[in-house]
Amino acid sequence: MNGILLAAVMAAFNYTEPADTTTTDQAAWNALAPGTYSGWVSKDTHYRQRELPASLTAAPGDTTVTAWRGERLGLEALVATTEGIKDLRVKLSGWRDAEGRTAEWPGSEAALMRYVITNRFRSCGKLPEGLPEYTVNDMIDLPGSVADVKAREVRPVWVTVEVPREAAPGLYHSELILTGGGETLAVMPLSVKVLDRTLPATPDFFLDLWQQPYSVSRWAGVKPWSAEHIEALRPYMKMLARAGQKSATAILFYEPWGEQSNDKFEPMVATTKAKDGSWKYDYSVFDRYVDLCDEYGIAEVIECFSMVPWEMRFRYFDEAAGDYRWLDAKAGSQEYEALWNDFLKNFYNHLDQKGWSERTLVAMDERGLKEMKEARRVAQGAVPGIKMSLAGDYHPELEPDLDLYTLMIEDFFPAEVLARRKAEGKKSLLYTCCASPAPNMFSNSDPADNAWLPVYARATGFDGFLHWSFMNWTDNPLEDSRFFLFAPGDTYFIYPDGRSSVRYERMVEGIQLSEKLRILEKELLEKGDLAGYAALQEALLPVRTGAHTRHVSTAKVINDLQREANRQ
Amino acid sequence: MNGILLAAVMAAFNYTEPADTTTTDQAAWNALAPGTYSGWVSKDTHYRQRELPASLTAAPGDTTVTAWRGERLGLEALVATTEGIKDLRVKLSGWRDAEGRTAEWPGSEAALMRYVITNRFRSCGKLPEGLPEYTVNDMIDLPGSVADVKAREVRPVWVTVEVPREAAPGLYHSELILTGGGETLAVMPLSVKVLDRTLPATPDFFLDLWQQPYSVSRWAGVKPWSAEHIEALRPYMKMLARAGQKSATAILFYEPWGEQSNDKFEPMVATTKAKDGSWKYDYSVFDRYVDLCDEYGIAEVIECFSMVPWEMRFRYFDEAAGDYRWLDAKAGSQEYEALWNDFLKNFYNHLDQKGWSERTLVAMDERGLKEMKEARRVAQGAVPGIKMSLAGDYHPELEPDLDLYTLMIEDFFPAEVLARRKAEGKKSLLYTCCASPAPNMFSNSDPADNAWLPVYARATGFDGFLHWSFMNWTDNPLEDSRFFLFAPGDTYFIYPDGRSSVRYERMVEGIQLSEKLRILEKELLEKGDLAGYAALQEALLPVRTGAHTRHVSTAKVINDLQREANRQ
Repeated sequence: MNGILLAAVMAAFNYTEPADTTTTDQAAWNALAPGTYSGWVSKDTHYRQRELPASLTAAPGDTTVTAWRGERLGLEALVATTEGIKDLRVKLSGWRDAEGRTAEWPGSEAALMRYVITNRFRSCGKLPEGLPEYTVNDMIDLPGSVADVKAREVRPVWVTVEVPREAAPGLYHSELILTGGGETLAVMPLSVKVLDRTLPATPDFFLDLWQQPYSVSRWAGVKPWSAEHIEALRPYMKMLARAGQKSATAILFYEPWGEQSNDKFEPMVATTKAKDGSWKYDYSVFDRYVDLCDEYGIAEVIECFSMVPWEMRFRYFDEAAGDYRWLDAKAGSQEYEALWNDFLKNFYNHLDQKGWSERTLVAMDERGLKEMKEARRVAQGAVPGIKMSLAGDYHPELEPDLDLYTLMIEDFFPAEVLARRKAEGKKSLLYTCCASPAPNMFSNSDPADNAWLPVYARATGFDGFLHWSFMNWTDNPLEDSRFFLFAPGDTYFIYPDGRSSVRYERMVEGIQLSEKLRILEKELLEKGDLAGYAALQEALLPVRTGAHTRHVSTAKVINDLQREANRQ
Repeated sequence: MNGILLAAVMAAFNYTEPADTTTTDQAAWNALAPGTYSGWVSKDTHYRQRELPASLTAAPGDTTVTAWRGERLGLEALVATTEGIKDLRVKLSGWRDAEGRTAEWPGSEAALMRYVITNRFRSCGKLPEGLPEYTVNDMIDLPGSVADVKAREVRPVWVTVEVPREAAPGLYHSELILTGGGETLAVMPLSVKVLDRTLPATPDFFLDLWQQPYSVSRWAGVKPWSAEHIEALRPYMKMLARAGQKSATAILFYEPWGEQSNDKFEPMVATTKAKDGSWKYDYSVFDRYVDLCDEYGIAEVIECFSMVPWEMRFRYFDEAAGDYRWLDAKAGSQEYEALWNDFLKNFYNHLDQKGWSERTLVAMDERGLKEMKEARRVAQGAVPGIKMSLAGDYHPELEPDLDLYTLMIEDFFPAEVLARRKAEGKKSLLYTCCASPAPNMFSNSDPADNAWLPVYARATGFDGFLHWSFMNWTDNPLEDSRFFLFAPGDTYFIYPDGRSSVRYERMVEGIQLSEKLRILEKELLEKGDLAGYAALQEALLPVRTGAHTRHVSTAKVINDLQREANRQ
């Protein structure tokens, strides 16, 4: 048993699924005849653990969904029991085409969903005390997991369908099979209508989720950058690549973000001050990480954090002292310029040897304009033509030098700037963080928000979507999504040991949907189909206006657009 | 001298333009050589009375603007003086075409702008105390007005150009002539490039500004509904019609809105309880008002306020008592149903005789859903098929019965509901009120907001724009736009004695721009010009996203779209 598996088993051993402690109306349960009920349910809502959803008893026993070839689909089912179920297990039967022939759909699987703790906080700053906690079925457990269901509890189930890229168009069938106590509880038919359309193998969507490899080594209990750490990172690399990730996010010097990270970001470049006062750099960790990302095709850019960290302190090993030392180097100081000038020259020499210079971006996280202009000056001085990135406010002064520029939702590039950036091949993204109550990707966000955000980003002219965190795990990420800062779940939306989440799966859905809309729009333009093009523009209006109201929810907007994209 | 003229003279006599009491940086003035300066300036900003705008000294001496035939254009100029000007007067010279031939452009005129008091409050509720006041050049005085300008003060000037609908395309020239102390101070050339495109005589835009005729009678000091009152109303009728007003707003019973009106809304239907207990109704005021609106072509709908007033009390004359009495009649009560059933039957009998039934809407202002459903039940019972209107939240339960339904900005109809309403000929509008800080139509709003709102409304699928107030004047509307409630200027945006405002003129600009965009879109569809259509859709994106940021301001969005609409 290797380290990662051991860690997974250990974690599973210690895992206790949080219980919903809120009061539940028992009237619906009282009116229900004893037994176990199951049905396909909407994935647009969270289901309370001890509440009987009205939709369940009315839910049909089977479901048909429509998909493009190469699409990853999520479906949700739910089991409710008046009596309790011992050892609930779920699996998919084999797939068959319309003629009953066996079809291989690898990657399609069913899994139990799990509850994590959240609360209603949707803001920045310290998590307020005293907010009532509740649980949401955000986590999708590993296939093969088992759970007991107590009397008058529900258990949601997630089904992932990966439609093969080479599947012939037509209807395909499978069943979701639920067993409890070794007995078959339900066999729920599931049909997929595969259209004669194919999603590209790699989305033309710039997804930029900043990675936190040190959460993974901490959780796995392994040494950073050991072979075990690399293995533990692989499931996340795979998920990132599947979604459309384009950026390997590397850490140059210690701690770009200060205390807002639960796990410290260790430098991927080891900096040493030699006895003669010269600097030496060791790039072996950096190289290993970039190589790993490359393996998964996450290779469009390498973002290096950060020339303007939140605390302007750089750690290095001092050979003379035989220990680590800190250099305080504010932007604008001689120390800052000397440090970065020396480093960047050396770094780009290394990158040149690797053939990576052209895709490397020196990143700035939002700081004062003065500091950022100073960082740019130093960087351009050291490496003329160096590429840079920034996520933050729109600064016309910086824009021309930013090959990757990400604005917060509700901020916009001037139209002519966005058009010029596209023509120049520069990428312009949209991000959300704790400052946007909704739509967002918190554990308390509406599930459809995660699909809406990528669609909104592309429909309003951006090249893609950025989020500052993907796996910045809390101390106990399997059970509690709350961090001491920010809205709960803001720091991660993927779970340990390779577990997925509603938030990840629905983000993938949104990226795929934005791809469908892009492909359809391009096709209509190429075919010269004005009526079709105008109809598509009208269908895009609700997402372009940013509507997210009670009656025009993100779920409605996404479902309407999905229907439009899946019309034949 | 008739009453209205007398009132105008009296008001002018008592008028003292408010002075800006804020501190002003004198450095720019100190650096300026003594003299009087003038230039064309942007109309997208307010100019402080005692501040030298940086743009002025750099402003060119002439300006060329582009217009469609039938377009009403606003241009702004500014005079600054180090020494003071006595008796500043402005006028336009006659118009000439490119060959120097005289052209008649009636309605084109220059006027001094005037300052009114505002503050930074942009919200609902009581106006907070202690907010610093300042002045904005929102009012456009009557042509021929005269003002002294003090040393180190500025005076903005507004030029209205009405391009004749029959003008041949080409360049036209005029001059803005400034005189002071009887001397010519400046002659500023102005050219208009008239395109071979014509705006419709009546905009296909549903403008719905609720009227307050009793402010006008109060200001003019005349008896409501006297011949003098009708005369005093005419300038406003003309302005409403010029902008695209489609609705005559009539008051059925006393006081739809309680204390939020500075002038009480007197009933236009006189209700009498006869000695035998039966009800009698006198419609002569209502008829007079509808006839007046009809004269100006404001004749698409008659909105009657309100079946659900803010206080459920109805005043009537009691013949037995020989005096007025109040009937408390909550929705759902027997009294309410009996009153309205009797009245509506009688009223629609009268409307039938007038031929007005089909265009009359019984209006509800936002109240509780229960009360509104009850009002609908009673109305439908009395007059089956009666048409109704509502401005407020989106209620799916009420929507099918609302021939005119207006949602607050940032609320939206579900797309399929909006499409169905269009197919059914029902109108769907957007409104702003004190609850939207920006964009809005307060006296402290950015001037371009007033143009942006109608364009935004149409570009996002609405049929037009509604505002609850047009001339609900404060006690001293020429001098102080603040009311004891709401953001300053929220209650009116047109000034006494027929004076216009930046807010009115820019709203007209926005309605015209939305018309241009509609016409161009229709033409591209009819011509089958997919590339042109796609380019227009892209140009519309910034307004559709609702962007209003520092770098993508409403002014930028409007100016970009205006350029797009005026491309040849």
